[in-house]
Amino acid sequence: MNAFGKLFRVTIVGESHGPAVGVIIDGVPAGLPLSADDFSVDIERRKGGIQKGTTPRKEDDFPLFQTGLFNGHTTGAPLTIFFENKNTRSGDYEKQRSVPRPGHADMVAHQKFGGFEDFRGGGHFSGRLTVGLVAAGVVAKKMLPSIAINATILEVGGESDIEKGLQKAIDAKDSVGGIVECRVIGLPTAVGEPFFDSVESVLAHAVFAIPAVRGIEFGSGFAAAKMFGVAHNDAIENAEGKTKTNHAGGVVGGITNGNELVFRIAIKPTSSTPKDQVTLNWETNQQETFSVKGRHDLCIALRVPVVLEAVTAIVLADLLAQVNAIPRVWKG
Amino acid sequence: MNAFGKLFRVTIVGESHGPAVGVIIDGVPAGLPLSADDFSVDIERRKGGIQKGTTPRKEDDFPLFQTGLFNGHTTGAPLTIFFENKNTRSGDYEKQRSVPRPGHADMVAHQKFGGFEDFRGGGHFSGRLTVGLVAAGVVAKKMLPSIAINATILEVGGESDIEKGLQKAIDAKDSVGGIVECRVIGLPTAVGEPFFDSVESVLAHAVFAIPAVRGIEFGSGFAAAKMFGVAHNDAIENAEGKTKTNHAGGVVGGITNGNELVFRIAIKPTSSTPKDQVTLNWETNQQETFSVKGRHDLCIALRVPVVLEAVTAIVLADLLAQVNAIPRVWKG
Amino acid sequence: MNAFGKLFRVTIVGESHGPAVGVIIDGVPAGLPLSADDFSVDIERRKGGIQKGTTPRKEDDFPLFQTGLFNGHTTGAPLTIFFENKNTRSGDYEKQRSVPRPGHADMVAHQKFGGFEDFRGGGHFSGRLTVGLVAAGVVAKKMLPSIAINATILEVGGESDIEKGLQKAIDAKDSVGGIVECRVIGLPTAVGEPFFDSVESVLAHAVFAIPAVRGIEFGSGFAAAKMFGVAHNDAIENAEGKTKTNHAGGVVGGITNGNELVFRIAIKPTSSTPKDQVTLNWETNQQETFSVKGRHDLCIALRVPVVLEAVTAIVLADLLAQVNAIPRVWKG
Amino acid sequence: MNAFGKLFRVTIVGESHGPAVGVIIDGVPAGLPLSADDFSVDIERRKGGIQKGTTPRKEDDFPLFQTGLFNGHTTGAPLTIFFENKNTRSGDYEKQRSVPRPGHADMVAHQKFGGFEDFRGGGHFSGRLTVGLVAAGVVAKKMLPSIAINATILEVGGESDIEKGLQKAIDAKDSVGGIVECRVIGLPTAVGEPFFDSVESVLAHAVFAIPAVRGIEFGSGFAAAKMFGVAHNDAIENAEGKTKTNHAGGVVGGITNGNELVFRIAIKPTSSTPKDQVTLNWETNQQETFSVKGRHDLCIALRVPVVLEAVTAIVLADLLAQVNAIPRVWKG
Repeated sequence: MNAFGKLFRVTIVGESHGPAVGVIIDGVPAGLPLSADDFSVDIERRKGGIQKGTTPRKEDDFPLFQTGLFNGHTTGAPLTIFFENKNTRSGDYEKQRSVPRPGHADMVAHQKFGGFEDFRGGGHFSGRLTVGLVAAGVVAKKMLPSIAINATILEVGGESDIEKGLQKAIDAKDSVGGIVECRVIGLPTAVGEPFFDSVESVLAHAVFAIPAVRGIEFGSGFAAAKMFGVAHNDAIENAEGKTKTNHAGGVVGGITNGNELVFRIAIKPTSSTPKDQVTLNWETNQQETFSVKGRHDLCIALRVPVVLEAVTAIVLADLLAQVNAIPRVWKG
Repeated sequence: MNAFGKLFRVTIVGESHGPAVGVIIDGVPAGLPLSADDFSVDIERRKGGIQKGTTPRKEDDFPLFQTGLFNGHTTGAPLTIFFENKNTRSGDYEKQRSVPRPGHADMVAHQKFGGFEDFRGGGHFSGRLTVGLVAAGVVAKKMLPSIAINATILEVGGESDIEKGLQKAIDAKDSVGGIVECRVIGLPTAVGEPFFDSVESVLAHAVFAIPAVRGIEFGSGFAAAKMFGVAHNDAIENAEGKTKTNHAGGVVGGITNGNELVFRIAIKPTSSTPKDQVTLNWETNQQETFSVKGRHDLCIALRVPVVLEAVTAIVLADLLAQVNAIPRVWKG
Repeated sequence: MNAFGKLFRVTIVGESHGPAVGVIIDGVPAGLPLSADDFSVDIERRKGGIQKGTTPRKEDDFPLFQTGLFNGHTTGAPLTIFFENKNTRSGDYEKQRSVPRPGHADMVAHQKFGGFEDFRGGGHFSGRLTVGLVAAGVVAKKMLPSIAINATILEVGGESDIEKGLQKAIDAKDSVGGIVECRVIGLPTAVGEPFFDSVESVLAHAVFAIPAVRGIEFGSGFAAAKMFGVAHNDAIENAEGKTKTNHAGGVVGGITNGNELVFRIAIKPTSSTPKDQVTLNWETNQQETFSVKGRHDLCIALRVPVVLEAVTAIVLADLLAQVNAIPRVWKG
Repeated sequence: MNAFGKLFRVTIVGESHGPAVGVIIDGVPAGLPLSADDFSVDIERRKGGIQKGTTPRKEDDFPLFQTGLFNGHTTGAPLTIFFENKNTRSGDYEKQRSVPRPGHADMVAHQKFGGFEDFRGGGHFSGRLTVGLVAAGVVAKKMLPSIAINATILEVGGESDIEKGLQKAIDAKDSVGGIVECRVIGLPTAVGEPFFDSVESVLAHAVFAIPAVRGIEFGSGFAAAKMFGVAHNDAIENAEGKTKTNHAGGVVGGITNGNELVFRIAIKPTSSTPKDQVTLNWETNQQETFSVKGRHDLCIALRVPVVLEAVTAIVLADLLAQVNAIPRVWKG
């Protein structure tokens, strides 16, 4: 299903080259002030075409509020926000219909949807759909005024100097991946539920909806597997649960412990590399050499931070609603 | 919530030192042959007390079928399996009520449940509850006769020679973590749903319910972030979707591509280390030095493989049910 | 939440006088042929303005496919269908903002959403939103080609001669209610789940989403409460489960028994009656006499049959998906 | 699925003649005081064997707390309560394996579960399972201290003098049905969600899980279909939403309006009538005359009120949790 959340529920719809992509958000408190202006910063951050290493496809990405907004405030009914697809060049894709791009979902989409999938630009599997996530994130962030969510790029192409990582890709005429870290300050204790709705469970669930994510780790993460127990355990310092170190990344037993929430995700290199690649042509049933012609990102990780923040905000809004921490009617 | 799954739904209940722990499984096909014998191998694998490095707490762990079984077959109604807690020494814990063990859920449980939590042995947060997961995994595996799920320990304490890793812990009188890999053969293509019910999303969701998991990665995982695109992309070789390499770990766009499913998880060092640690006494509101007296694992990762297989089987049973691949009545 | 269904999931959005109302449908098989023409008959049936006794508000109600449709077939991704609100006269409502109409949701909406609700024309509570249900019903019906769902009006204003019932309302310058019956032929046996997902449970759940429904009964329904057991029980005649009588209405123990599914719903009289009524003015905190000026139905029950069929189709599509009876890719 | 609820989630398990029946309740606040004594009144009310017209099968029905209770209070983890089946005479049923009892689920269970169903005493479809509902209702009622839920029998066998209705059944050597009404005082306004989670939707959903329910109506219910609008509409009297009449039964637009919640359900006559009946023998494939030998209720409606109260409390606990009205930690 294309929906996430129990009380704050986000549904992502659309295809890259269809009329529009969008998001439907159920469970927004009534009375939250909201306007197109609220979206511009995050929408701009997600856009390609500005930074070195991102796609030149340009979309206005102006949010169209179809439902749930009245007199500049949310109504309590589902909020529907659409973004038109204007800058599409579908011809790029139609030519190569029978040649699934390696690393992309073309082949699995074809197997799953029997050839009826909208294949243009990756269709429903396109990174284009993350604009809906970003929009939902803007709403979620507004619902969490005392929580600061901050995602940053830790490394690109294996380099912590990001410019250097990008240059590697440019030099190699190839694409590269990266690592993005998210830190959350201001989260109360006791958020998250034991077992299947642990903070890690629901965050990981939502985060893997972001295309190109290959891994997630909390606190010390994979490095914890190499540590001794006494080094990894965080000494509790006060009754609020403040710890001396934060190897747990702010979550113990699936529940927030009042310290900074810290997690990192691995982003694979953009599948659309300028390099020649070998793939199957399912019409001829022969392998052939394939070269991507469309407009693409050198390093998709560059565009991920704002999406990761959005997903984090969505998850936290839902978890906080479950502990009665989100009012049903907003008080300015 | 303590339940997972849409059509094959698993609910985990119990506390470490309460009368019993158990699992309720809804959505089991009617007619699946099932007996206590089916459980013995996996239950034994999960048990401590045999291998070096695992806890000497011994439980019979004999599955008690309370509901859903009749004449040796499942009935189609919910299956309830309980395991009695017999070998408990709660006194160990009562003494240290106000001293939350670092790395354990004691502090967050206290914050979340206001002091009403069953604190004995970690209560509902105890690794003891994974026996219910293992039991559900046994049922799920029987529902997937043509799929082979295999989890193995890749490293302990940073060593791929596991004995060596354990010896490090013994020498240091401390606990260590580890990395566990899971591989699945025989999974059909087109399993998993786009966006929020991607294979990675639902697997990660369930996997983080296993205590001590700190990270998960699919295919090349975090290493992918350092690779070039052309190296990471897997060349498609035939119409079934077979790829030359398997950096994707068998999942593209959240959907299985017919190759081996491969993922790894990071397990933190056992929180109960024999070493002295500093923590807060919430009664005195002073920090004090704390030393674990209970029976515990040197390396909890050693007991994780069978739990990871179980969780994987649970997730796959649910995903396969969603693509009509699990019959509602079992045909021998 | 504004969504219904487990595998075939329908989300209803919009407000009566906002830009649009619509429906998002997740879980539609890929490859289902679909065009605007498929919708015209049911959309026309739902419309007012044609029959005596229905509102003169006229909307084109042309389905706008925003997502999920490609080359005349569903893609397997969520289907989004919108209907623009064009023919609105919001001024009618703004004048009477502080005077909640008796029988309408004005007062409860105000209490629930703190004054932020879109109050124009009932906003999100308007019968206008049933156009989305009808659209989803069209899709669901196409997924059930061997099942015939037929809803008819049994009585209006207490009269089985419906013209006579309407005339009563016209003569009394008041509105009237009615009873609608739904019959389903071709439903296989063994659909529905024990206990909480019984056929009656999920049908009733969805049916009460239709505004103005006040009751539902299956088979003999309330009359069963006056019958003897031997008269009510249906004698089983053959191995397919065919019964001599059908007092059960096709459902026993929550599961279909292969006979015709029969249920009835009670529709209250249209709340907007031309008659003067007393209500509270929450600004003056005085009661005052109120007279509805907008355009409304004399008997809303007249427009219910197509909506009831739609809801029934939605529920059955979801229940049949749960017993593996809906393919994920459509085969013409 | 055998579970109901979003935040307060109840799972019903067991078979009539299996080891036990029970209930698992997730989402109970931590700290709710609870003991076996709390259950005795409602468990007694549900029991047969005392009143004229109810089954002589006697069970202790002593609640066994398996999980979620510690030191006389709930822990916040799932609460599991079992009731052993002691007083079973399965031989009664084994003899008639191939002769499905008319009105019972025997035939549909056989079709759905392929012969693997536990057929003894109706198995999972037995009214015996409502003891789990009653237990969950006891917990839910404790969570709603300021709400009074009261269900009463309105009529039996078509008679409002209930003794007279029962005598009709005794004279006719047959079983009879009845009508049960539920009234709820103290419910706040603004409970329930628009569209698919309307108060009526979720109540009806849960109520139809009670065996033998054939209809439900709110407020004036089916009688509303015969009323004029001006007569049915309830005049609002004050800012709290108090209305002069209560034809709406306390729910408008799916949301509580602060008035008494009123609804009625129709219970069919007990399927196990002492009278001879004709049914199919699926072994011989011939119809034969069948006579019920087991112990059964003359009028099952007599035992429904406490079950209906329980289901109502379960639903309200869940709806109130969704509007932040149930604390996660109980304060005495």
